[in-house]
Amino acid sequence: MNRRSLLKGGLLAGLTIPFTGVSDVIAKPIGGSKKAKNIIMMVSDGMSIGTLNMADLYSNRILGVSSKWLGLYRDNKAVRALMDTASASAMVTDSAAASSSWGGGMRVRNGSLNVGMKGEKPQPILQKFKEKGKKVGCVTTVPITHATPAGFCINIDNRGGQDIIAELYLGLKFDVMMGGGHKYFGEKRAGGNLIPKYLTQGYKVVENRDEMLALNNNKPVLGLFAEDGLPYEVDRKHDKNLMKSTPSLAEMTMKAIDLMKDNKDGFALQVEGGKVDWAAHSNDVSGLIFDQLAFDEAVGKVIEFAEKDGETLVIITTDHGNSNPGLFYADEADKKFDSLQNFKHSNTWLLAQLNQSFSEQKIIDLIKENQGFEIKPDEVKSLLNHFKDISPNQLYNESNLPFYEYGKILGKYTDVQWAGMNHTGDYVELTMFGPGSENLKPFIKNFELHNFMLKAAEMPASFLVKA
Amino acid sequence: MNRRSLLKGGLLAGLTIPFTGVSDVIAKPIGGSKKAKNIIMMVSDGMSIGTLNMADLYSNRILGVSSKWLGLYRDNKAVRALMDTASASAMVTDSAAASSSWGGGMRVRNGSLNVGMKGEKPQPILQKFKEKGKKVGCVTTVPITHATPAGFCINIDNRGGQDIIAELYLGLKFDVMMGGGHKYFGEKRAGGNLIPKYLTQGYKVVENRDEMLALNNNKPVLGLFAEDGLPYEVDRKHDKNLMKSTPSLAEMTMKAIDLMKDNKDGFALQVEGGKVDWAAHSNDVSGLIFDQLAFDEAVGKVIEFAEKDGETLVIITTDHGNSNPGLFYADEADKKFDSLQNFKHSNTWLLAQLNQSFSEQKIIDLIKENQGFEIKPDEVKSLLNHFKDISPNQLYNESNLPFYEYGKILGKYTDVQWAGMNHTGDYVELTMFGPGSENLKPFIKNFELHNFMLKAAEMPASFLVKA
Repeated sequence: MNRRSLLKGGLLAGLTIPFTGVSDVIAKPIGGSKKAKNIIMMVSDGMSIGTLNMADLYSNRILGVSSKWLGLYRDNKAVRALMDTASASAMVTDSAAASSSWGGGMRVRNGSLNVGMKGEKPQPILQKFKEKGKKVGCVTTVPITHATPAGFCINIDNRGGQDIIAELYLGLKFDVMMGGGHKYFGEKRAGGNLIPKYLTQGYKVVENRDEMLALNNNKPVLGLFAEDGLPYEVDRKHDKNLMKSTPSLAEMTMKAIDLMKDNKDGFALQVEGGKVDWAAHSNDVSGLIFDQLAFDEAVGKVIEFAEKDGETLVIITTDHGNSNPGLFYADEADKKFDSLQNFKHSNTWLLAQLNQSFSEQKIIDLIKENQGFEIKPDEVKSLLNHFKDISPNQLYNESNLPFYEYGKILGKYTDVQWAGMNHTGDYVELTMFGPGSENLKPFIKNFELHNFMLKAAEMPASFLVKA
Repeated sequence: MNRRSLLKGGLLAGLTIPFTGVSDVIAKPIGGSKKAKNIIMMVSDGMSIGTLNMADLYSNRILGVSSKWLGLYRDNKAVRALMDTASASAMVTDSAAASSSWGGGMRVRNGSLNVGMKGEKPQPILQKFKEKGKKVGCVTTVPITHATPAGFCINIDNRGGQDIIAELYLGLKFDVMMGGGHKYFGEKRAGGNLIPKYLTQGYKVVENRDEMLALNNNKPVLGLFAEDGLPYEVDRKHDKNLMKSTPSLAEMTMKAIDLMKDNKDGFALQVEGGKVDWAAHSNDVSGLIFDQLAFDEAVGKVIEFAEKDGETLVIITTDHGNSNPGLFYADEADKKFDSLQNFKHSNTWLLAQLNQSFSEQKIIDLIKENQGFEIKPDEVKSLLNHFKDISPNQLYNESNLPFYEYGKILGKYTDVQWAGMNHTGDYVELTMFGPGSENLKPFIKNFELHNFMLKAAEMPASFLVKA
């Protein structure tokens, strides 16, 4: 492109811009014309648009500041698109097919991780980046072997084999893998303890917050901070022991960046707020809002880094909607919503305390103490009645807790209601910041992000997935 | 702004644009640098993001083409923002406060039309445009005296006074007012028949599709095509008499444009797909999707006009979410969703046919004939049980029909589920096309649209609402 020929041409003839400065118009492509040395993709898993909005409403009303994510829009710093989230097998995706679409550049059937309908096994994007000299990693609040990180890393036809995924990771020698899922690596693992093998491979393995904060970049890192998923943020924040033992998503994210940022060829990192999805599956309102805010805290830290760095493309999105919650029109809707600030614990935590032998009053007191509401005796009765009456659609509900019933009860007190307990086919919000973002169109299909990231990083054309 | 100084400056130094042509970058501000002689604001009332997405999924799968609205994104023709929809009294707005925010430039309490918390009465935007020589009008599928058109036209502290609003319109002498609501104007009106007064005032009054299509622009027009709201599109399309008597939203819209487009100072038009909101309040899935598609047809026609015209700013949005429907993850979700093509009638139409004396089999047959499903005997029983058990939150349900129960039953067959039966506080989608759209930031508050439209039309600064 010859700049002179552009300027002489007719394009600028008659240019008058009544309400904006030209600098506004031209700032974006110049800011974005550089190569993206680093890529950070941030996924709030299972985030319906209502989840994003309610976290922003909460942030504005109770914390007195915009959420970091929507602050990027308020400050006109980022570009946005609507993303179609379908899988190869359905309009409504699961997290495995969704992450595969980004990670492998093609749609696969629900449940598959980068294994196509005809058995294709496209190379996952972090393997590509690693091959070209970048440091690569994933951090998440659910098991690090879970669908969303795994879709950036490996090929396996069944996402359920998390103990196998843990072994596949061993061969990859990625630089930073941190989250939950100790049981898929450690002494409880079905196929034998992998941790000695990770150590032999040269890994540093850390199992609590202090160990994590003390890490340096001498060795690749495996961080495992819970047997399964990490605690919900609302539970972590109100438990001194958890605050001491368990890092926040923002802390893991910034440590991951610290460990990789000095690499001369840059880095690629996936960050997942994985329990936003679990909270939505459980219609657990404080689990949802406070984990979304914990994700937002990580967004703020990442943008802070990327603004200083200037060579980092940040992509912020979700893989699909989940349960489509909303704050509903009602008397005193605002007051009800604001009561979320009184929650000390998630529904998941609370229901796990309940014992059917408890008196009604004891249950009422327990709820009042931990969530601030005084629910009615008939509500307690209906809750106890439903303890054994669990919807078959509920994932992540191994203890058979009455999430549906309790979510409905809390709907009356918080004014937040839910359309179901599973993923939805909604198109979702996608935000980009930094070099490469100028190429984002207003509508994108999930699998198109694969080549988009490779191009932004100016990876060799041979890595691109052919249409 | 001196163009030369810009080009000599440092802004363009080192400009390299790896993945986009410069023409892409500069095309938008040039295209948008003109004055917007005409303004068309299109409102799909009560449209949650899932409503927009499901209409697009339906359009792609069943009709084989993108929806016109999201086609604007697919073709990279429009800009988009997220809009905060709060009212002065709550995070969750009603349609009166929402339309007032656009129409009057300030937030008012729910239920009010352009009367502020301190009794302020800002001049509604169509009065401003009329004062400066534009032709102005509104078309809708609900009563033309309903909240969304009224918020662009008049000041009244209670949206409920639709017979009064009809009289307020008389004094405005606006150019085109078309929709439903005959009962607020004609012989059934509480305060006396206004139609003779409209005729005396010089209006042409039309009451059916043929009369409407035959209109010319000699006189201002009042079009009243139903006593209350117009029929749902799915009902209209499957009833020969309604097809003959009742215009579609696209037909009303294009007639309104035809009647106003030759005015030398341009025109301003509000277009409302009002029954999208009513369908959401009723959890009426075919009412919702096919009225959204009827709105989308109007979007397509408007954009076709605006592309040729080149001087028209088109704004497409909604006033608030409603019921947050979604297509849910399930076995055969796609097949269930596709069954929407078999609907001949809305739930509203169908439930109004039911009679509690009907046999179970007769009800099963009626549903099968009109919506294509064979529901189960226990579902019929639960439906009949709930005929007198209506949720207190249901608006537009004068006949006390069991919308909630039937919506839940259909959720199993169509896989579309609902989070409630009322408005939500979600931020909403807003799209702009044409001159002025280049000034849209990624986040906007509803009341900011007022000055935005005035500025795009280069109206005198004295008309702007002061912050």
